[in-house]
Amino acid sequence: MAAPSEGDAASLLPDLPGGPLQAYRARASFCWKELALFLEGEDMLRLKKSIFSALEDDPLFARSHGHELSLEKHRELTFLRCKWVLGHAPVRVEDMVRNPLSVLTLITCLGTYDWSLAQKFLLHLLVFGFAIYKSGSERHLEYLPKILNMEIFGCFAVTEVSHGSNAKAIRTTAHYDPTTEEFILHSPDFEAAKFWVGNMGKTATHAVVFAQLYTPGGRCHGLHSFLVQIRNPKTLLPMPGVMVGDVGKKLGLNGVDNGFAMFHKVRIPRQALLNQTGDVTPEGTYVTPFKAELGREIHALVSGSKPLASWTAQRGIQECREACGGHGYLAVNRLGDLRNENDPNCTYEGDNNVLLQQTSGYLLGLLELRLQGGARLESPLGTVDFLEAYPDILNQRFSCPSVAGCLESSVPLAAYEWLVCYLLRESVQKVNQEKRSGSSDFEARNNSQVYRCRSLALVFLELTVVRRFHEYVHQPSVPPPLRAVLQRLSALYALWSLNQHMALLYRGGYFSGEQAGKMIENAILDLCAQGSPWRFAGVARHTDFVSQQLKDDAVALVDVIAPPDFILDSPIGRADGELYKKPLDRRPSGEPSAGAGIVVGGVFCQ
Amino acid sequence: MAAPSEGDAASLLPDLPGGPLQAYRARASFCWKELALFLEGEDMLRLKKSIFSALEDDPLFARSHGHELSLEKHRELTFLRCKWVLGHAPVRVEDMVRNPLSVLTLITCLGTYDWSLAQKFLLHLLVFGFAIYKSGSERHLEYLPKILNMEIFGCFAVTEVSHGSNAKAIRTTAHYDPTTEEFILHSPDFEAAKFWVGNMGKTATHAVVFAQLYTPGGRCHGLHSFLVQIRNPKTLLPMPGVMVGDVGKKLGLNGVDNGFAMFHKVRIPRQALLNQTGDVTPEGTYVTPFKAELGREIHALVSGSKPLASWTAQRGIQECREACGGHGYLAVNRLGDLRNENDPNCTYEGDNNVLLQQTSGYLLGLLELRLQGGARLESPLGTVDFLEAYPDILNQRFSCPSVAGCLESSVPLAAYEWLVCYLLRESVQKVNQEKRSGSSDFEARNNSQVYRCRSLALVFLELTVVRRFHEYVHQPSVPPPLRAVLQRLSALYALWSLNQHMALLYRGGYFSGEQAGKMIENAILDLCAQGSPWRFAGVARHTDFVSQQLKDDAVALVDVIAPPDFILDSPIGRADGELYKKPLDRRPSGEPSAGAGIVVGGVFCQ
Repeated sequence: MAAPSEGDAASLLPDLPGGPLQAYRARASFCWKELALFLEGEDMLRLKKSIFSALEDDPLFARSHGHELSLEKHRELTFLRCKWVLGHAPVRVEDMVRNPLSVLTLITCLGTYDWSLAQKFLLHLLVFGFAIYKSGSERHLEYLPKILNMEIFGCFAVTEVSHGSNAKAIRTTAHYDPTTEEFILHSPDFEAAKFWVGNMGKTATHAVVFAQLYTPGGRCHGLHSFLVQIRNPKTLLPMPGVMVGDVGKKLGLNGVDNGFAMFHKVRIPRQALLNQTGDVTPEGTYVTPFKAELGREIHALVSGSKPLASWTAQRGIQECREACGGHGYLAVNRLGDLRNENDPNCTYEGDNNVLLQQTSGYLLGLLELRLQGGARLESPLGTVDFLEAYPDILNQRFSCPSVAGCLESSVPLAAYEWLVCYLLRESVQKVNQEKRSGSSDFEARNNSQVYRCRSLALVFLELTVVRRFHEYVHQPSVPPPLRAVLQRLSALYALWSLNQHMALLYRGGYFSGEQAGKMIENAILDLCAQGSPWRFAGVARHTDFVSQQLKDDAVALVDVIAPPDFILDSPIGRADGELYKKPLDRRPSGEPSAGAGIVVGGVFCQ
Repeated sequence: MAAPSEGDAASLLPDLPGGPLQAYRARASFCWKELALFLEGEDMLRLKKSIFSALEDDPLFARSHGHELSLEKHRELTFLRCKWVLGHAPVRVEDMVRNPLSVLTLITCLGTYDWSLAQKFLLHLLVFGFAIYKSGSERHLEYLPKILNMEIFGCFAVTEVSHGSNAKAIRTTAHYDPTTEEFILHSPDFEAAKFWVGNMGKTATHAVVFAQLYTPGGRCHGLHSFLVQIRNPKTLLPMPGVMVGDVGKKLGLNGVDNGFAMFHKVRIPRQALLNQTGDVTPEGTYVTPFKAELGREIHALVSGSKPLASWTAQRGIQECREACGGHGYLAVNRLGDLRNENDPNCTYEGDNNVLLQQTSGYLLGLLELRLQGGARLESPLGTVDFLEAYPDILNQRFSCPSVAGCLESSVPLAAYEWLVCYLLRESVQKVNQEKRSGSSDFEARNNSQVYRCRSLALVFLELTVVRRFHEYVHQPSVPPPLRAVLQRLSALYALWSLNQHMALLYRGGYFSGEQAGKMIENAILDLCAQGSPWRFAGVARHTDFVSQQLKDDAVALVDVIAPPDFILDSPIGRADGELYKKPLDRRPSGEPSAGAGIVVGGVFCQ
């Protein structure tokens, strides 16, 4: 990839092509370029542009229009592309460590091209490589250059057949043998096989393997990670004692080879232990510099963010698929790819419903501490500080005299604080009631998930997102021409999200009367509406038009985040909006395909 | 296919294999065979069994484990299988006309094997063939034998590029020319091309084409259907003036070739008009025996049933996919196929949101008539008769003293009647308010969809389903041992469904106080619970155990509707429940695939 070119911000955002979308763009209340620059910053825009251009310019990234890739071919291409990115990415590993935002930008750009590529790259360099860098020590640094030039290729093996979302229950063992200064890695049975591991199916030569560490005498020190060679890098044949294979085709992300592995008393050197948090001396004594009590708040937030984000994306993609009618169902338009590639987000790194228990458990624990006369309710990031006013918040009631008053995210923000407190109280009551009737701790928590703890976790995360969004759009650095549209977006997200919980708001007494609920619905509809009646066609320029609500800003908002046509690779999403003119020119062969973006008429437009 | 064998009902339902599921089956409160017999009847059970066995016995239906079918191969196989079914189905066309349930059974069986096959067969025989039989007359009967032996192959061409869900807006024309006694079929432009037509892409030789009929002098008589040859049956080359092609790969149902066609002044004989409801004399005079005012209630029900059914299936499949964790994401387990093959149900034969307007329009129209002093509110099937008590129902309030009282579908039934009346009033008010503020009829209806008319249509359909279910399980012919489980199922569906509308029930005052809403939630949880604590393993026989709630009946309920393993073709769904024993024996080649149904541990079980 060429180094990012010099130039001012404007050159990073070329004008969009004319065409049928022009009239819609002219309705916008703001300049999309100004918003893009404000959201991403010049550096990240430059990085994005250089990544996208590099992909478009290299034949290795040519799109395979009209030719279906076989499973093996897709994987082979993804591997070659991954290697190419490691050699050519315009962001170096040092930059990534210094500026994590550049990692996010790189992964997002690769993913927008093909999420299999982003996954494969991420798993090798950032999950496998970073695990060695962060969990290992001096003695593991020799691996890093080999990772960077793909002399070795990595995967990250936590999950087992029977333990998808419950890492503590992992059953692979690593017994230390002081006579040879080795660990003996072993899978007791098939249910303890490592499973689903990305990159393990065909391509990984090494794995970071999680196993229960035992020292002589049989003492278990819990889960630790080990760097294990699983294949010969020249022949890709398995190492002795390792049974490794491929789990087969999935619903999506088929450029990534997910695999399984069983270890039959595989001996690995003592130094294979990634010993940042605990080590074993040559004689077999376990030593650890500290206990892991940090980051509980971040853990709680992350455990709730993934479910909220993956489910929100799922709903959004499905809504778009249906709104585009049959064209959304045509493979060429790639809404199916988006759906299939988002879907596993609901499952891996912990099933969504299981993960949410981490978040609710954190909140319940905090409240319990407080009720026992513990310290003030506060946290490093401040996401739970409002709970200090828990009893007062429960006494609050909705107060907004008009629909216009609801068009501000502060109204749903207050409702969300009440909602978290209400669900917290409901959850505590339910858990206690279960315990009183003889349930074990596990049963009590299990039986309190539906309608209580699960809702609590989701609502707490929604509150956190709503609050962040609210704060972001109200910060003084927001350029004045962008304030209105950002505040409307923030209000729409908050109200739409809150509206899903209207039953609880009424049931718990925060809302009462018919008008309160209608006010929220009307506010949502108002925010989605267009500013004033306007003619469909012939609106070439509207510089003096001040748009009121979000419908007029919709196309310009998409322009802010849209990747180039080559990267998006969806005829229905062409930047020029030429949906009807070029429907048959997609395929290289003689066979016509009218897959270009034609909106099926008559679809009801919200 | 062999003729259905003789024998008693028991022989139709062989015992299920032993294995890990046996303990769960032993918990059931009823005999699954008795329920299967009651639900389907002996004749349909026999038909199902003979269809399933015939498919399993013929090599043409062998499963392609481990070998990915190309698009072309999948289509070719589907075509050959369709031909095979026409020649071998154990139900004859006369039987289908006499007993429509046998059609449903045949299509469902074929679909359970592969929905592409069911679709292709359905489109040719029942949509294309039945259209000719029902909409044509004496002069079209000659086509029927050719359809049955697949001398000609058919498709049904309504949809156009720009008119997916709005049949009235179709722009293909058929002008009558009395000098040659022909119609001239013409597509004015690409937006009027027939599009998405199943079977049209590669295989259809003939199409039933919908076009606006014009008689000399330029009078348009509206939409009529014509039997048009589009390809030469020997060469499959297009007929002169017909441009026909394939729309390409879709997200699912790829055994069906969906196509498009444009007609350039194609001349077809006068007799090609399917003239059941209207004809043109040789001289060019339009004659019609009647107007179409029948079936409004059925139209309203069907227009709402498809959205409710397709969306319910969508949610259910996705829930199962996620509940099965990574195994749900493995292609071999086929939950992806189910999702992809249900998905277009939300779109074809009318986009769900558009169709729902037919249902709400029907209800609004009835109420308007009534308010204008019209006739009593009643309908042939009786689905709207309760609206006669509209004002009284609106004054009703929830009254159920206990959770136990909610465990009956009569409680949600009453709530649903109130809900329909409430949304009917809200919708009428909104439409009127829009009209008063100057909106056109179209705008007024359009702006009243979200939160009003759309909800009204869905809620009305849900009420209809809840009522039917309630009546079905309370009829005297239900065998006493089956009553409890069926009534619990009916109550669970009704309460779960109703619970989605809790916000409206509170807002409109039908519910008040915290306890009412909690009671519904607790009733749902109670119904899903198991009867009493029991040990996980070692429960071989429990004949004296009376199960209380549905968790204990879950596996037996699945047994009632489950197809044989060969048809289901999903390792995770094996009847013997041997999830861990045979995970690697699926593939014919040497490559192991651990795709068998292993439930990822730790998934929270509701």
